[in-house]
Amino acid sequence: MNADDERLLEDLLEGKHRALARVISKIEDRAPGYRDLVSELYAHTGEADVIGITGSPGAGKSTLVDKLAETYRERDETVGIIAIDPSSPFSGGAVLGDRIRMGSTIGDMDVFVRSMSARGTLGGLSTATTDAVKAMDAFGKDKIIIETVGAGQNEIDIVRTADTVAVLVPPGSGDDVQTLKAGILEIADVFVVNKADRDGADRTVHELQDMVAMGAGDGVSMAGGGGHHGADALATMDDHDDAHAEWAEDADADADADEWVPPIVETVATRAEGVEEFIGELETHQSYLIDSGTRAEMARKRYAEEIRTLLREDVHDLLEDELAAAGGIDDLAENVRTGETSPYSIADELLAPVADCLDELETGE
Amino acid sequence: MNADDERLLEDLLEGKHRALARVISKIEDRAPGYRDLVSELYAHTGEADVIGITGSPGAGKSTLVDKLAETYRERDETVGIIAIDPSSPFSGGAVLGDRIRMGSTIGDMDVFVRSMSARGTLGGLSTATTDAVKAMDAFGKDKIIIETVGAGQNEIDIVRTADTVAVLVPPGSGDDVQTLKAGILEIADVFVVNKADRDGADRTVHELQDMVAMGAGDGVSMAGGGGHHGADALATMDDHDDAHAEWAEDADADADADEWVPPIVETVATRAEGVEEFIGELETHQSYLIDSGTRAEMARKRYAEEIRTLLREDVHDLLEDELAAAGGIDDLAENVRTGETSPYSIADELLAPVADCLDELETGE
Repeated sequence: MNADDERLLEDLLEGKHRALARVISKIEDRAPGYRDLVSELYAHTGEADVIGITGSPGAGKSTLVDKLAETYRERDETVGIIAIDPSSPFSGGAVLGDRIRMGSTIGDMDVFVRSMSARGTLGGLSTATTDAVKAMDAFGKDKIIIETVGAGQNEIDIVRTADTVAVLVPPGSGDDVQTLKAGILEIADVFVVNKADRDGADRTVHELQDMVAMGAGDGVSMAGGGGHHGADALATMDDHDDAHAEWAEDADADADADEWVPPIVETVATRAEGVEEFIGELETHQSYLIDSGTRAEMARKRYAEEIRTLLREDVHDLLEDELAAAGGIDDLAENVRTGETSPYSIADELLAPVADCLDELETGE
Repeated sequence: MNADDERLLEDLLEGKHRALARVISKIEDRAPGYRDLVSELYAHTGEADVIGITGSPGAGKSTLVDKLAETYRERDETVGIIAIDPSSPFSGGAVLGDRIRMGSTIGDMDVFVRSMSARGTLGGLSTATTDAVKAMDAFGKDKIIIETVGAGQNEIDIVRTADTVAVLVPPGSGDDVQTLKAGILEIADVFVVNKADRDGADRTVHELQDMVAMGAGDGVSMAGGGGHHGADALATMDDHDDAHAEWAEDADADADADEWVPPIVETVATRAEGVEEFIGELETHQSYLIDSGTRAEMARKRYAEEIRTLLREDVHDLLEDELAAAGGIDDLAENVRTGETSPYSIADELLAPVADCLDELETGE
């Protein structure tokens, strides 16, 4: 690590927001040296509670997140917010200090808001987001909120990296509850029916209650705070169905243990109603994670996933170099088309030397 | 290749169905030696027309495929059918000669039906399916039909490997046309409204016509038979949105060329009505592919995707070995959790020797 990065790291650890912003920019840009920088952060992490908040657009997510942050600040807890912007195809585009949309009286920087793109990586979670969480954690933020729009697989993968996931469901959305089932509901540790003063809110709450009751019975969905966060990254790549099946087995295996049954909270974020109760449920879940030992287990699974994601990314770069050195993918594909060779022969030729090298290393040392 | 596999290959090339069945079983099982076997097949392929047929369950797909095969046989063309079974999590489970559901008078083996699982691979298309297509192609089948249920991404990826993709839309499914839009419609080269004698069939045809007309205008969807089949596999892994954006650009670039506008065919498969017209449209599309030069371009893109998929699979295996040699992913993850190391350090340590090996190879030779 060069002297500049070392000072940057020191500044971040001392709690300078400008340094935090610069580190996250480096992470997003994958600027030279960012790997060593992030690598150093790890030793200083593990204290923050990471909360993921997702829900369809219009569920009132931003307002609720603002009120949540405000309430934390009133309790003297520092807050970092990472707002995933699915509309932005760019990483690195965000400006220092960036999105400040707090309509509240909070003028301090202890609610540090950062927009990031949902730009994915090679399957699994977005490395940039998890790295930014590490930066905020090492900085000393007590609560880190990852806010996503629960649309794509990318957003789901990102929000799943949180310790506790809250899913916002708009009121009067009987159909939406069915639609949500596809992927969002399984990851919910807490349900929030926001805009609870609207027509249909009661029905939505009842439908969620029914669903949670069924979920607790069938041992597939909502089977605790741990299992579902840890789907093996390579398994996910191999086959989404397999990964799901594997996870379902995990859930079955856990079924005898104390199961976490997602509570349903009603809020009216615009009037800050229900926010205290929401925070209470988030805390109950955090305690559950610690008491049941799931928190450590979740962390291990998450780190395993991070390691695999990084390996995939790095190998991807190596392979692209190899392909280029072998004449470029286009020429190779044309050679297959004209019957000169086959994809299998090409893969063998490219990877045989790598495998040999690795064998030599293992036997030679 | 051992002597048994050499004889197996000879038998397949001589047109023995038993050999074809055994080769596909070896492909599904990834039996020892299957790579060399498939590798040899490539030199004998390229003659078959590969037709993908997909649609929601209940659209009458199986019946239509049966009638299609029957009509091809009446024209003295040989047919191979690969029926992707999304309910089966197993590969290798299919029995020799397997699913025979033809209710017709055809007793010969020249309609060779094979069920395969939709079990995915590392992103992108299923290697086993494309390999089975190669086996049927090398065997000498004139027409190869890949039949999938258009539900998951896996099925879409598989059906996209065909030269021509037909999408079945059930009649009276105004809502379904909207729902389909998500991913299926973009891959259609031909639309089939089956059960065209039912109420609502006319409306469905009109809605499809409107959609095709819009699609031809906006330059995004249905922009020819070539571009959309060839989304770069690694790009797809990197980011589905990016890949889509890239493809949309391709489509725009092609917009000036002769655009393929998907025709809409009405059939009543149970009475074999419209099947001749359907075959006519399939043939028109095949001619279009050849005349416009898209067929060669599609083949190149598909082979590039196959090469990348294989490389990923092989490297995945190498990495798992490396992870095991480094103490196993669980221990590594625990070391990260306790703050001893970071995912970045682990990735660097594991991959540095690989990178060094590759560098040495490049400079040493």
